[in-house]
Amino acid sequence: MAISRVNIDIQNERDRASFNSEGLTYIIHGEFATRRRRYIENLVEKDPDFDGPCLYYLSRDEIYEEGIRRQSLFIRKIAEYGLDTEEEKLWMSNAIFGNNSNPMSLHSSMFLPTLVSQASEEQLQRWLPAARKFEIMGTYAQTELGHGTFLRGLETTATYDGKTDEFVLNSPTQTSYKWWPGGLGKTSNYAVVMALMFINGINHGPHPFMVQLRDLRTHEPLPGITCGDIAPKFGFNMIDNGFLRLDHIRVPRDNLLMKNVMVLRDGTYIKAKHDKLAYGGMVFVRATMIERAVYKLLAQAVTIAVRYSCVRRQSQLKPGQPEVKVLDFVTQQMRLLPQISLAYAIKFAGRQMHEMYQTITQDISGGNVDSLPELHGLSSGLKALTSDEMRVAIEECRLCCGGHGYAQYSGLPQIYVQAVAACTYEGENYVMYLQCARYLMKCVDMINKGSPLPPTVSYLSREFPLCLIDQGVQLEPLLNAFKHRAKRLVSKAAQNLTRLRSQGLDQHEAWNQAHPYLVKAAKVHVQQYMLQAFADKISPISDPKIAAVLKNLILLYGAKDIIDNSGDFFEDGFLAPKQFQYVQEKFSALLKEIRPDAVALVDAFDFSDRSLGSEIGSYDGNAYERIVEFAKKSPLNKHEVHPAIRKYLLPRGTASKL
Amino acid sequence: MAISRVNIDIQNERDRASFNSEGLTYIIHGEFATRRRRYIENLVEKDPDFDGPCLYYLSRDEIYEEGIRRQSLFIRKIAEYGLDTEEEKLWMSNAIFGNNSNPMSLHSSMFLPTLVSQASEEQLQRWLPAARKFEIMGTYAQTELGHGTFLRGLETTATYDGKTDEFVLNSPTQTSYKWWPGGLGKTSNYAVVMALMFINGINHGPHPFMVQLRDLRTHEPLPGITCGDIAPKFGFNMIDNGFLRLDHIRVPRDNLLMKNVMVLRDGTYIKAKHDKLAYGGMVFVRATMIERAVYKLLAQAVTIAVRYSCVRRQSQLKPGQPEVKVLDFVTQQMRLLPQISLAYAIKFAGRQMHEMYQTITQDISGGNVDSLPELHGLSSGLKALTSDEMRVAIEECRLCCGGHGYAQYSGLPQIYVQAVAACTYEGENYVMYLQCARYLMKCVDMINKGSPLPPTVSYLSREFPLCLIDQGVQLEPLLNAFKHRAKRLVSKAAQNLTRLRSQGLDQHEAWNQAHPYLVKAAKVHVQQYMLQAFADKISPISDPKIAAVLKNLILLYGAKDIIDNSGDFFEDGFLAPKQFQYVQEKFSALLKEIRPDAVALVDAFDFSDRSLGSEIGSYDGNAYERIVEFAKKSPLNKHEVHPAIRKYLLPRGTASKL
Repeated sequence: MAISRVNIDIQNERDRASFNSEGLTYIIHGEFATRRRRYIENLVEKDPDFDGPCLYYLSRDEIYEEGIRRQSLFIRKIAEYGLDTEEEKLWMSNAIFGNNSNPMSLHSSMFLPTLVSQASEEQLQRWLPAARKFEIMGTYAQTELGHGTFLRGLETTATYDGKTDEFVLNSPTQTSYKWWPGGLGKTSNYAVVMALMFINGINHGPHPFMVQLRDLRTHEPLPGITCGDIAPKFGFNMIDNGFLRLDHIRVPRDNLLMKNVMVLRDGTYIKAKHDKLAYGGMVFVRATMIERAVYKLLAQAVTIAVRYSCVRRQSQLKPGQPEVKVLDFVTQQMRLLPQISLAYAIKFAGRQMHEMYQTITQDISGGNVDSLPELHGLSSGLKALTSDEMRVAIEECRLCCGGHGYAQYSGLPQIYVQAVAACTYEGENYVMYLQCARYLMKCVDMINKGSPLPPTVSYLSREFPLCLIDQGVQLEPLLNAFKHRAKRLVSKAAQNLTRLRSQGLDQHEAWNQAHPYLVKAAKVHVQQYMLQAFADKISPISDPKIAAVLKNLILLYGAKDIIDNSGDFFEDGFLAPKQFQYVQEKFSALLKEIRPDAVALVDAFDFSDRSLGSEIGSYDGNAYERIVEFAKKSPLNKHEVHPAIRKYLLPRGTASKL
Repeated sequence: MAISRVNIDIQNERDRASFNSEGLTYIIHGEFATRRRRYIENLVEKDPDFDGPCLYYLSRDEIYEEGIRRQSLFIRKIAEYGLDTEEEKLWMSNAIFGNNSNPMSLHSSMFLPTLVSQASEEQLQRWLPAARKFEIMGTYAQTELGHGTFLRGLETTATYDGKTDEFVLNSPTQTSYKWWPGGLGKTSNYAVVMALMFINGINHGPHPFMVQLRDLRTHEPLPGITCGDIAPKFGFNMIDNGFLRLDHIRVPRDNLLMKNVMVLRDGTYIKAKHDKLAYGGMVFVRATMIERAVYKLLAQAVTIAVRYSCVRRQSQLKPGQPEVKVLDFVTQQMRLLPQISLAYAIKFAGRQMHEMYQTITQDISGGNVDSLPELHGLSSGLKALTSDEMRVAIEECRLCCGGHGYAQYSGLPQIYVQAVAACTYEGENYVMYLQCARYLMKCVDMINKGSPLPPTVSYLSREFPLCLIDQGVQLEPLLNAFKHRAKRLVSKAAQNLTRLRSQGLDQHEAWNQAHPYLVKAAKVHVQQYMLQAFADKISPISDPKIAAVLKNLILLYGAKDIIDNSGDFFEDGFLAPKQFQYVQEKFSALLKEIRPDAVALVDAFDFSDRSLGSEIGSYDGNAYERIVEFAKKSPLNKHEVHPAIRKYLLPRGTASKL
């Protein structure tokens, strides 16, 4: 739809912004990367090969077919356009698939990284070139129908047969079927399969095996392989998440990925130097998913809701006056503006995490794995908290758009269904909170033993005797308040563990009974990390206008958390009622200050209309015209009288009776 | 799928329950109604006419066709089976449509009730018989593309033409198109259209007009009528929510619904005796939707999640022991068991509201409208709070089912998308909170003037000097704590209004700035109503075992709220830290006490497997077998090699290169 004119209501918002949104875009994404991404998005935009049907009207089968069509285009076009960095390919994929993941997404996000981190040099030479050219189309098969979280509970077995120098992979039960891997059902011809490795009757636990699933020429499943689609999901329906049954499949011994472990011809098992090395891959995925998926989907939802709230006029502030933009109602501000803060907070915390990951992996290459537990604990908690908050925030954005937010044409339902998956994949969030809490409890032990603490938890041994929040509600006192709360509630969780042990519960039962305190401890620890990371990332910003508006966002983020969880601060008397009132008043004042910059703040996320996929959140703000154009194309409108009405309702001959 | 054996894990749960779930079913639903509903469900279950395709695989157009097919069956079968009460028809409709609403749902839920409450006797005689026989298929057209909440902002006009004794209905702009009404797009042939009534240039505000949309014989739209489907939504896709453009449509003067107002031949306008009478219909819908939609969808989600959590085994509580039911983890208990409480709380509060509605409408027939503002304020707040909490709770249930909760076969995504609509329809929730708050602020004025308060707000003038929560955490102190909090925060909102006025803001601006306090006041007022209603409804229960378990549920409900919102109780020093600790410990103790009854508590909701539509939440607990059977039927599994792979990926001739 070509609408060149920009809605005057949204133009006015841009004209009165206090800062240059393009400058903020460069801070968020980098100037060169922004230009390069836009260039690639523009290629896709202008290439008619990428035009396709509206997905909302397709059956599941047709959606999958469209996914495969786009995937084949993706493979061809990255070669044609000469895109070869992972980042460029990702931009291209995002431009092509929008908020629908592609059927081979696990090929890039899990299969290739697993090969790189787990396969020996010889194995890499054997498989990587073909996989890079998509001749091998791979997936990563770990989860089973009856087994997710608990890796040691997997049932798939890989038994070494010394006579033939092969592993025999088998699915002994229905609950052992591999279940969920993306692209496993119909698309992939290879998989890395996690299976319990048995050698001479000894269970060595889960290990990764390269397994060919389908004939490379005919794509028919190989003998003994049964695989298929697991049926539709809330979202991700372009992907054939699949099941796999292995019936005594034989693979050569050296299909076990052997970078970190080895099995010799005689069955001798040589263990990894560090059994924590397996963490690396998971941590990498969690670190990148925070910036790529969690931030991105939230920022998209906020962009749509904020823009729409500036073109939607509804009700009067004063009787007799014209209807006002809904973002001028304080209810709308208090629901939406904190979501802008959250998107920035997640972006900056995700980046900080990513940098920490890079530093620590360098240490690991140098043989130093000391920081792995810290990284693992923090990344678990951060993945859980950011995805939980993102999920709630996206839904708030959707609800803020009223009825139109419930329509698919808003783009928001599709964003939501993609987003919520992040609460479950790569580690169910409550399992993640508990992993983070387990690390925190170890830190408490370290404090009790007088051992020094790693940087991200060092605050646990500091003192925060007084809440310093005054009328101004400055950043430093907020940071202190968050650290004090986290320290107190981490300590409270540890005390509850001790109390439960002292009541006679064994260690495991006490751990279970202390769950409510442990989850809380993990959440508030991560909250203080996010606030600190946000603060760290904005302090070097030199543009004073941008620095000022981001400063307001971080204050809003902090104030909102204190208001929502004031009991955390009141319980021990740390926060005084008067201070709470300052925070509430500051919250209101911040809404007022940030309101004029709302559109510029979401413009700075720099999403193209194509990537938003929203008729109500487009850059030009012409929501109503776009909605009407969109609705006209509904297939139900092809006939004035729908065939189903003729078939089922008209034969009753109603009219004659009237 | 015929599985007769019940999963032993779930059978054990039932065997060890402390009470008879059938007895609780009768308390919730009534014994006779339960038997009658089961009888009707059984008719549908056994009638092969109702067999149909799996909706997850259909295109939007096919889903609509299936909806119309079922609707035509519904019309035929209610006659065949001789079902004639509204309740019986509703059960039948639920049995046929499950969690998909039918394309004519507004015919029964809005069109007929509007006729009954707004049409004169003569008009009823003219239209009602044909409408009851579905010859007239009606909808209710109020919302417009650009206008929802603010009724006076509607743009559709109905201008009286005295020369011809007709009203001329017109859509002057694109934003005036009627937008959203269910069944408006393709199904309905009549609509009650809300339009601004102009007589001799005077705007008398919105009034309801009966408008014929389509020819009763051919179903073609009449001249001047443009209508169609507004495209797919998050859910409700069996319904053709529609748009309508009226181009100077002429209807006789007496198509204005004239029970409460009249326009005479000469254009004289005779107003309603009570302009608050229009509230009645809205309040009725809100009162019934709490029991019918909000309670029902939540109870279904809880049923699925609790049953699944008792057949899903994952991880070990102690190393070396078998994997445990996930409901034995305290994280799972703290996430799920409060949702059982909430479902019961909503059920009982909804019933209390319904009874209040019935009492007050009797008063109104007797000419007494004094209680309407109380009913309107409370029902607005209750609609908003229950639907918000239900939405969050359903999603928690879904997330508690891990990956399988993300699959459509769990039934949970479908429940969620139906459920969230309730936060927007019949009044956007934040608008509802503010309407409730407006009533509460009037109550504060009444207190200041020394006027007596209506029953549901009388606690606002009581004193609650001390928090009486002790180690036992009994019900009475919880009720008092909830009332104290509501009273304090209602008063705080009023003080903030005064403070803002004293800063020089006018009344409307002060109201806007006070939104955060007003919303909070409304929420905590409704919370205390719900706790009290829950308490009132369980106190007469004579079965001691059932009374005991419901008592635990209400305590859990109260304890959870205090834990989640402890600041509300700490802020003024009402709650002491020691008391908070009692509440936290009681919360843990209650989880432990309620855990063994979890399955019996959800069994008592008495949903048939058909109505749940869940492979993981069926009564027999055979989740995995059902999932596998379901997945096998995915259309993607029709061919071993999907045609899209042949079409797009195989031509690259990958294999030859390997």
